[in-house]
Amino acid sequence: MISDRIRQQFEFIKEIDALKSVYRQSFVISGYKRENDAEHSWTLAMLCIVLHEYAIESINLSKVLKMVLIHDIVEIDAGDTFAYDEEAIKTKRDREFKAADRIFNILPSDQAKEFRAIWDEFEEAKSPEARFATALDRIAPMFLNYSSGGLTWKEHKMDYPRIINKCKADIDNGTKNVWPFIEEFLQDGIKQGFIAPKACSPS
Amino acid sequence: MISDRIRQQFEFIKEIDALKSVYRQSFVISGYKRENDAEHSWTLAMLCIVLHEYAIESINLSKVLKMVLIHDIVEIDAGDTFAYDEEAIKTKRDREFKAADRIFNILPSDQAKEFRAIWDEFEEAKSPEARFATALDRIAPMFLNYSSGGLTWKEHKMDYPRIINKCKADIDNGTKNVWPFIEEFLQDGIKQGFIAPKACSPS
Repeated sequence: MISDRIRQQFEFIKEIDALKSVYRQSFVISGYKRENDAEHSWTLAMLCIVLHEYAIESINLSKVLKMVLIHDIVEIDAGDTFAYDEEAIKTKRDREFKAADRIFNILPSDQAKEFRAIWDEFEEAKSPEARFATALDRIAPMFLNYSSGGLTWKEHKMDYPRIINKCKADIDNGTKNVWPFIEEFLQDGIKQGFIAPKACSPS
Repeated sequence: MISDRIRQQFEFIKEIDALKSVYRQSFVISGYKRENDAEHSWTLAMLCIVLHEYAIESINLSKVLKMVLIHDIVEIDAGDTFAYDEEAIKTKRDREFKAADRIFNILPSDQAKEFRAIWDEFEEAKSPEARFATALDRIAPMFLNYSSGGLTWKEHKMDYPRIINKCKADIDNGTKNVWPFIEEFLQDGIKQGFIAPKACSPS
């Protein structure tokens, strides 16, 4: 006897496989290709495991992991929104809400509610887990970018003030003792010509 | 002040990015490319979250998630070993042990020990978490294969007895009430010509 429940659960797994076709601006560190959302979600989960001691508040790691593993599923419908694309950011919320309504509801209703609640919590950054996850979600592409030789920064003619404006508050809001490491590699990125030291017009 | 500890932690994150270049035999469901180990690890983690109610024993989901997220990191050095490649399986253990010694030791020693212990536990399949993770690690490529139209099965001229011999005991050892769903799609795979119904010589 095969329950409708298990069919819905596997239908969801089938649907979210499409996350492997949603490409981000960041490259993998070796630079051979851009990273997709499934790969990013894995990296982010690994960052959360390795760096959880730097959370600014007490966190439930299991909840953080669920959060980061599902946080980008909405991009299957809504697409990836580059963190520095101010025009796309205006419509991001609406696009992602519609996607959440469709995709999480493929699951049995109790799990649909649970996943939606975790995703809402992440989006609203209102819990210690969400603040920690958001901080690491900012760090992940910066570290990949730096380690890949600044590929995306160079492509988008990124400057230091834009990076700071977009990321520092979120990182400080969720982590302690991590920023000095970030600052060090950003300064090295400036020195190596990956990042302009002063504000310049966006590409 | 930047600690050696945080430098080691980020060095590990940098190193494991290479998992995005370790390709498996399975294709993503859309069939546009083979899946890599980072993508597989994400899918496996999602399967564990969605299907944890079917664990045969009581499990700690946080431990399962850590386990599946790190389980393939050794393949950065050891490469992916196709589950049906009997020759490669003979040397798999040695190759993976050497890789574990090198890669986990990039981390600070307490985390290196923790990660190694989790990986050993998975490999030995001696805990409820490891048995559940192993079961899902068998299910993941089968479900992807079926959903992609049997691409890898057709490529390797797979037959039903080989799949059963390789996977059924592990799946029954870690999950309850999942096998009937697997059996149903395997039978459909036979019907659609993805899988030979009887044993034939391996490709």
